[in-house]
Amino acid sequence: MVSTYSKMHSFGIPGDRQFMILTSGNLATSQGVVSQIKKEIKHEATNLLTLEHMTEVAEYVGEISRAEQGKAAGSNVNVESYFIVGGQIQKQRPSTFLVYPQGNYISSSPDTTYLQIGESKYGKPILDRILTPDVSLETAAMCALVSMDSTMRSNLSVGPPIDLQVYDTGSLARGRRYRFDDDSEYLRQLKRAWDKSLIDSFKKLPPVAWSATWDRHAEEDTA
Amino acid sequence: MVSTYSKMHSFGIPGDRQFMILTSGNLATSQGVVSQIKKEIKHEATNLLTLEHMTEVAEYVGEISRAEQGKAAGSNVNVESYFIVGGQIQKQRPSTFLVYPQGNYISSSPDTTYLQIGESKYGKPILDRILTPDVSLETAAMCALVSMDSTMRSNLSVGPPIDLQVYDTGSLARGRRYRFDDDSEYLRQLKRAWDKSLIDSFKKLPPVAWSATWDRHAEEDTA
Repeated sequence: MVSTYSKMHSFGIPGDRQFMILTSGNLATSQGVVSQIKKEIKHEATNLLTLEHMTEVAEYVGEISRAEQGKAAGSNVNVESYFIVGGQIQKQRPSTFLVYPQGNYISSSPDTTYLQIGESKYGKPILDRILTPDVSLETAAMCALVSMDSTMRSNLSVGPPIDLQVYDTGSLARGRRYRFDDDSEYLRQLKRAWDKSLIDSFKKLPPVAWSATWDRHAEEDTA
Repeated sequence: MVSTYSKMHSFGIPGDRQFMILTSGNLATSQGVVSQIKKEIKHEATNLLTLEHMTEVAEYVGEISRAEQGKAAGSNVNVESYFIVGGQIQKQRPSTFLVYPQGNYISSSPDTTYLQIGESKYGKPILDRILTPDVSLETAAMCALVSMDSTMRSNLSVGPPIDLQVYDTGSLARGRRYRFDDDSEYLRQLKRAWDKSLIDSFKKLPPVAWSATWDRHAEEDTA
C-alpha cells in the first residue's frame, strides 16, 4: 500500500480571487505550509484571502515556508519545499510564481512561459518546444500531460494520480480540475500515441552524412 | 573566448585492445586522470594497455580517480568526476562501465542498454524509447545525437563540439570518430527536423476527453 498526497491545493472566493498552490520537496514542510495557510484564513485578520496583490501572495507563501522549515532547525533532514503559486485577484492580471525554499520567488513572463517544480528535467524538452505565449489553454494543458508522461517514462518513481487545474483568466472561479488515476484510459492512450509518434519521427530524421563529419585528423591519445 | 576540452579519449593497441574514456564533472580531476593514465602507460609495468579484463580497466580508472580527488582533500570545491569506460580486450566481450567518483562502477546490460554522465536528464526520454539491445549501431549513434540535441535545447550552457565514437565489436581498432562543431550543417538540420516532427506529433495526439476526467467531487481546500 502506497500513500499518495495531493500536491495541488485551491483557495479562493468566487468572484473575488482564486489561487492554486502546487508543492514539491519535503512533504512535512509542504503540508505544514498548507495547514498554516488554512489556519490563518480562519484565525488571522491578514491571510491569503485578504492580501491585495499576487506578489504579496508569493511573499506570504515564502514566509510561511521559511517558518515551517525553521521548526526543523538543527536536523540533518532536507526540509526544503518548493511551491508554484498561481492565481488572480479581482481585475488584476493573473500571475504565477515559483517560490524557493529561501522565500524568494520568480514569476512567469513572455520569456519564461512556464514554471516547473519537482522532477522537472525529463519533461522540459517538450515544454520548450510547444509552450509559447500564444498557445491555447487546451494545448498548454495537453503539453503539461505529455511532459508528465515523459517524466513517468524516465523516472519510474513518478506516477499517477496526476492533478490538472485549468484556470480561465478573469473567471475568478475555480474552474476545471481533472484527475488522471493509475487506471486512466486516456493516460494509457496518450502514452501509446506519444511513444509511437516519437519512434516514427525518429525514423524519419535525416540520415547522418557520416563521411563528411568523420574526424580523420583527431588526435588519438595513444596508438 | 571560451575554451573547450574534449571529454572523449581513446587508447588502444590495434588488433589487441581498444578503449574509450568519457569524462564529466570536475575538469581538473578528469584531466588529471587522463594524464595519469598516459604517464603510467609510459612508465609503469601495469597500465591500461597491460590489464587483462575490462572490469580491471574500470577498477583501474576508479582507483586513479580516487587518487586524483584525494590531492584536493580538505578543499571546499567539489572535485568529483564521473567516467564512462568502454572497450574490448582481445576476443573478450566488449563492455561499458560507468565509474563513480567513489571508484565503484556499474556496467551496461540488456536491461540497461545505455549509460549517461553529465547533464543526463533532458536527453533521457528519447534514449528510453529508442535504445533496445537490437538497434543498429547507426540508430544508436543517431539516438545519442538526438539526445544531445534535446539537452542543448533545454540547457543553453551545453553546446558543441560534440564528439562521437562508433566502435565495431571485434574490430579492435579505433574505428570512426566524428566531431560536430558549432557550425555543423548536420546538427542544424537535425535540430530543425526533430523540432518540427515533435511539434507535428504533438498536434496529432488524441484530444483529451476532458469531461470524462473532470474531477467534480474533488475537495476544495476552501471555497
